[in-house]
Amino acid sequence: MDATAVRVVGSPPCRVGSRMSIVPGGEVHGTLGCAEFDAAAIEAAVDVWASGDPQTRTLHHDLGDIEVFFEPSRPASRMIVVSATDVARELRAAMGPLGTEVTLVEPRTDRVARGDGPVVASLADLDLSDYDEAVLTDHDAPQVTETLALLLRSPVRFVGVMGSRRHVGPYVDELRSRGFSDQELARIRSPLGLDLGGRTPNEIALSIAAGVVAARHERDGGWLDR
Amino acid sequence: MDATAVRVVGSPPCRVGSRMSIVPGGEVHGTLGCAEFDAAAIEAAVDVWASGDPQTRTLHHDLGDIEVFFEPSRPASRMIVVSATDVARELRAAMGPLGTEVTLVEPRTDRVARGDGPVVASLADLDLSDYDEAVLTDHDAPQVTETLALLLRSPVRFVGVMGSRRHVGPYVDELRSRGFSDQELARIRSPLGLDLGGRTPNEIALSIAAGVVAARHERDGGWLDR
Repeated sequence: MDATAVRVVGSPPCRVGSRMSIVPGGEVHGTLGCAEFDAAAIEAAVDVWASGDPQTRTLHHDLGDIEVFFEPSRPASRMIVVSATDVARELRAAMGPLGTEVTLVEPRTDRVARGDGPVVASLADLDLSDYDEAVLTDHDAPQVTETLALLLRSPVRFVGVMGSRRHVGPYVDELRSRGFSDQELARIRSPLGLDLGGRTPNEIALSIAAGVVAARHERDGGWLDR
Repeated sequence: MDATAVRVVGSPPCRVGSRMSIVPGGEVHGTLGCAEFDAAAIEAAVDVWASGDPQTRTLHHDLGDIEVFFEPSRPASRMIVVSATDVARELRAAMGPLGTEVTLVEPRTDRVARGDGPVVASLADLDLSDYDEAVLTDHDAPQVTETLALLLRSPVRFVGVMGSRRHVGPYVDELRSRGFSDQELARIRSPLGLDLGGRTPNEIALSIAAGVVAARHERDGGWLDR
């Protein structure tokens, strides 16, 4: 995240506009003018990062204070969409404006259409993190159980499977028999998305996109006015 | 809508593939082969139109029956977005994949950006119908009360106003004092959209788009799996 000195009071060793780039627990570049300010900024950055919201904090020095504007810039989330389906394509279109990159997973090369990229053949080719959201758009695809097992062992923050409980139930049962607990299995969101009642691929994609955003903000997706 | 003969039993005066184009209560083109089938199809079309879903019905004739596939093709809905705001622009992007044309209403020409078209200066320039959905994206715009009064007197099927109850309340009070009933005022949806928790223009637009689709299908939004 960026930490920028936006106000200087007294005569501390810092000028308005001095800036650091801080990855909490990682790389640091730039300086606010002295080791004390830099150390204080790195410490503050941990807090600000956890909050996710920009903040201005006052840092103290014997010669004067500075106000530092911290702006967390979390990496854009990534949506991993399994299976090249019409809904997968509409999801790419729906998530684009939200700054969410969509990566398609499809081992069946004959299903991949021009414009479907980036595509990987296997989920195992991806380095999964808690910035990833995963959606399975075809409960009849090969290796659904294995895909779900891999996702449940990963830190991805959202796992959704399109389809009714009737379709997804057998996979859940199979995963339970492989030792996944009910708590682990509860991560699988299915039926997936918000109840918009639409049936076309773009309506279904909108329902999933809206649900993913609601999940990001821990909301229930119901009407704001009802 | 189209009404197409898809099966013929016996020897009625009709061939598979015979087709009519029927606007319920309006123009009729083509024929299913005789006046009796055509009259029966026009009558059936009213029902099918009301249901909104495609249906196959059997039409009878002394010489034999035919099965006719009725496919209602309602005109694409139109979203009327009042005020040239960032949310208005994101709404256009969100509604496009759903086949919904967005018409912007903005009298302040200095607010209109390249790419905002089609734009009209006044709601009064539009021929409003029950295929229109209207969204006010700026509760501080000039003439909000007049705009809402015009929408409430129109057949538009959705009227939404962005903003908190605190912002919208005074307009509702003013409209009530002008004689609008509580039932009429209940058409105004505000705060607008589904509760996704997002704050950026594209998240807000997604919340509104999802809400409009939920309203089309008379659903409450909300998670499908919770």
